[in-house]
Amino acid sequence: MKKHVLLAASAAAVLAALPQLSLAGNEPIQPIQAIRAQNPGAVELGKKLFFDPRLSKSGFISCNSCHNLSMGGSDNLKTSIGHNWQQGPINSPTVLNSSMNLAQFWDGRAKDLQEQAGGPIANPGEMAFTHELAVDLLQSIPGYVAEFRKVFKTDKISINEVTSAIAAFEETLVTPNSRFDKWLKGDKKALNANEVAGYQLFKDSGCVACHNGKAVGGSSFQKMGLVEPYKTDNPAEGRAAVTGKDADRFNFKVPTLRNVEMTYPYFHDGAADTLAQAVDTMGRIQLGKKFAPDENAKVVAFLKTLTGDQPSFKLPLLPPSSDSTKRPTPFAK
Amino acid sequence: MKKHVLLAASAAAVLAALPQLSLAGNEPIQPIQAIRAQNPGAVELGKKLFFDPRLSKSGFISCNSCHNLSMGGSDNLKTSIGHNWQQGPINSPTVLNSSMNLAQFWDGRAKDLQEQAGGPIANPGEMAFTHELAVDLLQSIPGYVAEFRKVFKTDKISINEVTSAIAAFEETLVTPNSRFDKWLKGDKKALNANEVAGYQLFKDSGCVACHNGKAVGGSSFQKMGLVEPYKTDNPAEGRAAVTGKDADRFNFKVPTLRNVEMTYPYFHDGAADTLAQAVDTMGRIQLGKKFAPDENAKVVAFLKTLTGDQPSFKLPLLPPSSDSTKRPTPFAK
Repeated sequence: MKKHVLLAASAAAVLAALPQLSLAGNEPIQPIQAIRAQNPGAVELGKKLFFDPRLSKSGFISCNSCHNLSMGGSDNLKTSIGHNWQQGPINSPTVLNSSMNLAQFWDGRAKDLQEQAGGPIANPGEMAFTHELAVDLLQSIPGYVAEFRKVFKTDKISINEVTSAIAAFEETLVTPNSRFDKWLKGDKKALNANEVAGYQLFKDSGCVACHNGKAVGGSSFQKMGLVEPYKTDNPAEGRAAVTGKDADRFNFKVPTLRNVEMTYPYFHDGAADTLAQAVDTMGRIQLGKKFAPDENAKVVAFLKTLTGDQPSFKLPLLPPSSDSTKRPTPFAK
Repeated sequence: MKKHVLLAASAAAVLAALPQLSLAGNEPIQPIQAIRAQNPGAVELGKKLFFDPRLSKSGFISCNSCHNLSMGGSDNLKTSIGHNWQQGPINSPTVLNSSMNLAQFWDGRAKDLQEQAGGPIANPGEMAFTHELAVDLLQSIPGYVAEFRKVFKTDKISINEVTSAIAAFEETLVTPNSRFDKWLKGDKKALNANEVAGYQLFKDSGCVACHNGKAVGGSSFQKMGLVEPYKTDNPAEGRAAVTGKDADRFNFKVPTLRNVEMTYPYFHDGAADTLAQAVDTMGRIQLGKKFAPDENAKVVAFLKTLTGDQPSFKLPLLPPSSDSTKRPTPFAK
């Protein structure tokens, strides 16, 4: 842990919250392992559900709309577009490697992926459906009924099976084999000198106090604006909205930095368009450190080595609705 | 051609417009052939563009939003959702087998797929972008610049290359190997007796006058409401909007019936939710024929044999924006 001796004193509070690290070698970041699905049937079903816009009131918005697997599992918007073009309150976090998060949503209000999956479906500002309508819809589609029967051994679909299948799919969305992971595992040619210097700076500056572990984040809640207040128009309160504790105001789940090159814009309000901006802001408000331009560029170069193998699968084909399937109502008031 | 002797006299006008058919055996419908891409590089690039929501002002709407390849190349909505949740004027036709259409859009205002592809990008009610902004955006993304260079041997992207690549991808979206095509090719067990009876009824009733050829449609413009006026609130004028001729009022491109089980709802206004409704309406207003319930069911059973192999490919991964890429403005007024 001697690297942390170099941390700015102002980051001491963060250090106190540092979770137990199981170091890969001596490193605070561990490589991501490829995953083998435990229940391939559930994964395939969950993949269909993830891509199915019929789980929304409009028939237009699917999980993939805001967690787009063609774009790093995010929508690359400051805040998302919901039912009736409502402006979302917060930046849509990537679904990639999200199984590694200590909890889901920026404020951690869902304990796991299954609990998370039920949220957007029923959120009036997002998919604007209800769990009951979603289940009725799926129950009216013979192709889904057959698949739920095969996977869950039941003729009666419930929201539990729906969210369980979606979570099973999402658990497969890990991104191994980034250049950084290859370097971690001993392939010293996987990074160039500039990238290694960026990683050294990332460690020496204290970024790893929060961005550590396999996901390079996701393992703790931290205050946004530790050294210097973070200025934003976004009203999100963070963890305090869940705990009701004033001390948790502006505490957000630390986002993963895996694939961060693809998951712009950054922060819970999406205010940073570029990695250079994000690194600059983080240095100032979390660490009391002003990165010089060449330092900033080095850290950014390192961050771009965290892009791993993206999930690779065939676009799912969705079973057609039946005559009895209730039609979506995108324009109903 | 003796089958057509049985046609209702009221369909004579349609018959006059019957295009030259090259019959497979003695049948007015021909099997679809699998396609081998002529320019695989253009297809791969076009696939990315087809899935890329950055070609819209919002960064949220891609070609695939309304021509969803998980759902028969359509959005399964009466009329589509455009920028700022605008309600589209007309039902989104399937992109599957669309290369076989005599022209594109319901009113045939685009002569081919390439011309069509430029339409929605710049339509203020759809993707609400401009060709210039789309090209600037792509030119700012290194991954795209490299791919355009490889495919089109140019460093300067223009809208022509963009729509050419999208069209190249769309040309691959054919659906061979339907049960009906297997039957056409001689596998008499591919259909059951009810389905064959439905096909016979489809021919004997005169449906094939318009729904013929490989795509079972798409080869002519025809008046919607030939025998009996079609009642709709939809203001679309059809072909007249292109030709300016009053005689073309309510003439629409005959839609393909390939994969029709997946492309509900039906008609240019999306008014028919089910195949049973569509067959009933078509019989009445185009042929002066009221199908009995068992006849209707037989025709529907036949139509469901037209579902072919859906396009099968890996979800494309999109190259990330660069720091200089202009960010989308979904909520700008």
